[in-house]
Formats: sequence, structure tokens, C-alpha cells
Amino acid sequence: MHDKSLPGWIYEKCPDPSALHREAARARQDQLTKPTGALGRLETLAVELASLQHTERPRAAIAPITVFAGDHGVVAQGVSAYPQAVTIAMMANFCAGGAAISVLARELGSRLEVVDAGTCAEEPLRGVVVDKPRRGTRDFSMAMALESAELGFAFDCGKRAVARSKESKPDILILGEMGIGNTTSAAAIAAALLGIEAEIIAGHGTGLDAAGRAHKARVIEAALTRHGLQVASAVERVLCAVGGLEIAAIAGAIIAAAQERVPLLIDGFIVSVAALAAVRLNASCRPYLIFSHRSAEQGHRIVLDALEARPLLDLDMRLGEGSGAALALPLVRAACALHTGMATFAEAAVPDRDG
Amino acid sequence: MHDKSLPGWIYEKCPDPSALHREAARARQDQLTKPTGALGRLETLAVELASLQHTERPRAAIAPITVFAGDHGVVAQGVSAYPQAVTIAMMANFCAGGAAISVLARELGSRLEVVDAGTCAEEPLRGVVVDKPRRGTRDFSMAMALESAELGFAFDCGKRAVARSKESKPDILILGEMGIGNTTSAAAIAAALLGIEAEIIAGHGTGLDAAGRAHKARVIEAALTRHGLQVASAVERVLCAVGGLEIAAIAGAIIAAAQERVPLLIDGFIVSVAALAAVRLNASCRPYLIFSHRSAEQGHRIVLDALEARPLLDLDMRLGEGSGAALALPLVRAACALHTGMATFAEAAVPDRDG
Repeated sequence: MHDKSLPGWIYEKCPDPSALHREAARARQDQLTKPTGALGRLETLAVELASLQHTERPRAAIAPITVFAGDHGVVAQGVSAYPQAVTIAMMANFCAGGAAISVLARELGSRLEVVDAGTCAEEPLRGVVVDKPRRGTRDFSMAMALESAELGFAFDCGKRAVARSKESKPDILILGEMGIGNTTSAAAIAAALLGIEAEIIAGHGTGLDAAGRAHKARVIEAALTRHGLQVASAVERVLCAVGGLEIAAIAGAIIAAAQERVPLLIDGFIVSVAALAAVRLNASCRPYLIFSHRSAEQGHRIVLDALEARPLLDLDMRLGEGSGAALALPLVRAACALHTGMATFAEAAVPDRDG
Repeated sequence: MHDKSLPGWIYEKCPDPSALHREAARARQDQLTKPTGALGRLETLAVELASLQHTERPRAAIAPITVFAGDHGVVAQGVSAYPQAVTIAMMANFCAGGAAISVLARELGSRLEVVDAGTCAEEPLRGVVVDKPRRGTRDFSMAMALESAELGFAFDCGKRAVARSKESKPDILILGEMGIGNTTSAAAIAAALLGIEAEIIAGHGTGLDAAGRAHKARVIEAALTRHGLQVASAVERVLCAVGGLEIAAIAGAIIAAAQERVPLLIDGFIVSVAALAAVRLNASCRPYLIFSHRSAEQGHRIVLDALEARPLLDLDMRLGEGSGAALALPLVRAACALHTGMATFAEAAVPDRDG
């Protein structure tokens, strides 16, 4: 499935979760003053986090957010409802505090970093980390979107972002994306990796009408044929052919974070496709992924199924930016607070069911 | 459907939501820097809250929690996996800070009030508001659970709790419950009001096995027959026959809050059955109900369908105490923060889709 043409660190194994801490956390859950299992998915969430963080007391207090932005040459084919200039304007909006993810970052007390991983911006924007090998991808309906070295640069960009966010000693990371045209690139990647027709996985993106969506699916299908992509194609080749720089950077960030034993809250369709690519490149990162929400974008369900992921939220959202992951963070925090803060039956002198 | 034997205030109309503020909020949502509709249910949530609160800036900052506790005579029939003494022990645990709802209240910065609306406690517990007409209901397999005056007292208890919580000028209220045996009472109420067999609506409660659940369903079915309850029975009569004091107090609190134009975050199965009774008594309270989560208790889905409610969360929880509603509060707060805090396309100079 891959040809190992990317930087070597990508293929290095992530640490195993701790079975010892998982068992201890499970045992603690069963002693808390509630019927066994009554906290449902919050219990399994706390137990899994304890196992990933190798601790008795899982935490999600420090949760920095990194949004990666990139532009896509394929927008020349009319695959988005919005003009390409929106990518750069939204980067500025992230930094100015007016975007959804900016508001959520403030609410959560999370640091927000914006990385230009490959937009068409010619000048650095105030507050944006510029870390790109080129301005936008090539139009994948005409050419390979990326050369191999450019793809490797994007993975390294993700790793560098994780290294910066590690300075705050994060308990969990949130990754987001911005890029007009990136649902087209993500759908093309997923179609190739999963061997699914574009017609099934291409969605309405930011709001295409039925004709627009059908056109987008045809553009993707033609590109898959042009590049000879199929389910057996190497991940590296798929990403070069139809990928995006922000998508590759996110895949790199996922693997780098998991290698450092930092769990990730995975956002919607685009980030999930990056996660799919990351898992295909390095399966040992999979346990570190906590899926936050199910997007209204139609392909998301297919990608989640392929990853055997059941997200926490399902609120008909389809914004990206990491907004779905940010919304799920309070649930993760609550799971941790309940796990560490509730009394046991013995402590509270509450009769248990055998009492 | 009802005989108006309860206190007169229960039947007084709740104020209409503001169509003007709903329209203004909808118009604002469409100008925010995101694709139209991309925030999904968070958009409708903000718009509905604006309409209920008659404001341009909906809020969910101040969200006090009131937990009503009550005991149930029917536990003598072996319908719960836990001993009756747990009701009182958990009231103490709520006040001591060790229960799930105590932890969540701290996380949310919400005031937690515990009301003994009818437990078997003979002495007042430290920190608990005692407001009950009797200690526990009668065993409804043998007698009417409540006399009409006792039921009226419980509704007034709910109204008094809302009056106390109003002192903090709440933006939204969270109601919870505790009562060993109360899924049996709630299932009996719902079966009678909806004309559904007990076998279909009776669930595993705090953790009955299959035989225990079947027994519980038979106890309920026999009581419905004994009391001659059917879908045409007055709500007041159903609540006297098989009701619970904490369930009636919650129904009263719901109506009283809606009459004061305070929205409510509705918790799981028990609180939803109280909401069903409240809506049947006074349909004008329905717009004030925001449904927080879908419980794993099997009857909840049926009750939600009857109320045409689609809750925000679905996390396999079945704890009660108001815990599901508390978990949904951060989503409501995020919806408000996004509504008021995001920039418009004009403010941020982001090109819109027609740009």
C-alpha cells in the first residue's frame, strides 16, 4: 500500500497504549457511585484516555488547536461554491478572532495556531505561521497535484506544528483545516484509498447544488482515471496525485502526535480523510484518534466506517476548521472530571447493588 | 385529557416565543463567516433561544441545576436492582460533591440544589431542601400512588424550586431526578399516556437483567389494568395512580419555568416523561423544552418521538440526576458564543459565495 518515499519518521511505530492503566481505569469506573456502565461512552472515553496517557487521571485541560490552510488548483474546474480568495481571507479571520474556530478557542481557553501549509498567499499574514513548499497544489485534473518532495515537506510541516504545540504540554490536540476546494481533494483521496466511486463519496462541500455536486464527482472520477489510481495504489502516490498540502500536513501531525503519545480529537470529513491516510501509512497511530463528530458531508460516514470510528457528536455540522472537534472537547473534559472527581461507593457510603 | 383538579396556575398559558427575534437571529446566522447552515443544529439552537429569551444575544451562562428526589412504594415488588436506601444515600452524595451531577455542576459553574420532593428520609439532610407531602409514594401495585392533594403539593414544590432558582436570573434551567424505582413509575406513566404496552416501554433501569425487566413490565401492566388506565385517562389521574413525587415536581417546575419564559434543558427518560405529562397538561410549555440527550433506557426513544424531540447527544448514558442535560450545556453555550461572537462576511471582508 505504500512505497516509503516519504520522510522516514512517518513509518516509525507509535507507543502502545498502556493495558495496565486501562485496567486500573476500568476498575475505578466500576466503583464510582453510579450504576455500572451508566455513563455510557464517557466511561470508555476516560478509560481509553487513561490508557493513552499512561495515567490514573486522564486529562483534557490543555488542548491547543492548530488549523492548517491550503489552496487547491482544482478549483479552476468550478468545484466550489466559494471563490479561492476565501482561503486567505478566512486565515486572516481566524487570526482576527471572528471565525467559528476562533470563538470556540476562546470559549475553551485553547491556544489557536494558524499554519499556512500551502495557500496562494504571496505575503505572510500577521499571526500566521508560513510553512509551505509552494502556493497551492497543481490542478489535479491536468497534472499531479504535488511532487514527492512537496508532499514530504507538508508531512514535515505537520510534525513541526506538533513540536511547537508540545511546548504547552498538551493533554490532547485538535487539528483543523481551511481550503477552498479541499472537500474535492479529500473525496478524491478517499475514493482512491477505499476503492469507492466518486459519485458516492463526493458531497455538497460548502454548499454546491445538485448539478455542482455531480460536476465535482465527474471531475474527481476523471482524475482517478487519468492518474490510474485504484485501491491498490500506494498512499504516497494517491496524495501526490490528488492530495492537498493542508491535508498532508494534518496526516503528518497525526502521526507525529501519536508518536509522542499525544491523543488527537479528529474533526470532520477533511481531517478524517487525513487520518485515513495516516492510518494507512502507519497503523500504530490509530489508537490515538478520538473521533469528535459526524459531518453532514456525505462522504464522512464512509470514511468513519472504514476507520471503524463512532464519533461523539452528530449535529449536522459541515464547517471544518476543527470546529466539530472543538465542540466535543467539553465532553472529553467532562469524562475526565467524572472519572477523577466522583466518589466511590465506599467513600460515599452508598449501598451498592449487592448491598 | 385532564380534569383540572390540580392547582390553577398549572393551566395558565406560557408566553409565545418571539417571532421577531427568531427572524433577526436567523438573518444574523446567514451573515456569519461560514457557509450557510454549516453550523447545523447549533444554528437552530441559537435561533430558538433568541426567540425564547426575546433577545438578539441568546445566553446560557447562568444555568442552575435542581435535582428532585423521591421514593417509590412499588420497589416492594422487586422492580429495581438497587435497594431503596440508595435514594437517600445519593441525596447525601449530591450534597457532598461526589455524585456525577455534583462533578458536572462544578465543571459548569452551575449552582446545584437538591430537593427532597418525597423520599423516605425521616430527618432533613444537610444541604437538602425538604418540600414533600409524604415519605415516598404508596405501592401502586396495591393502591393509588398519590392522593390528588399530594400530587398538587408536588407540582407546587416544582414551582417553588423555580422561584428560588429565579433569584440567580437564570438563562436556562437544568432539572434532574433521583429515586430508586422511578423508571418503573415513569414507564407506567408513559405507557398510560401514550397507550403503549408496558413490555415495550419498560427498560433495564439501573441494570436489571432480562428476567428482572420482564417482571417489572408485568408489575406495570397489572397496575395499568388495576387502575383502569388507558390512553384517554386524564393526566392528573394517571399521575395519582402510578406517579412519583419527584416526577410530578419536575412537571410542575417545567410548566412554572416556561410560564416565566425560562428555557429548560431536558434530561433523560424520567425527566422526559415529566415533560410529556407537562405538555399534556399545558401544551404552551413545549417550545421551552430543549432535549439534551437520548438515554440508553429503551422507553426514552418512544417518549422523545411522542414529543417530536430530537436530542443533541446520544452517548449511551442512563444515569439520570440531570447528567445528560448538564453534558449538553456546553453545546448550548457554544451555540450562543458562536451566534454573538463570530464576525459577519462584511466585518471580516471575507468574499461571500456571490463575491
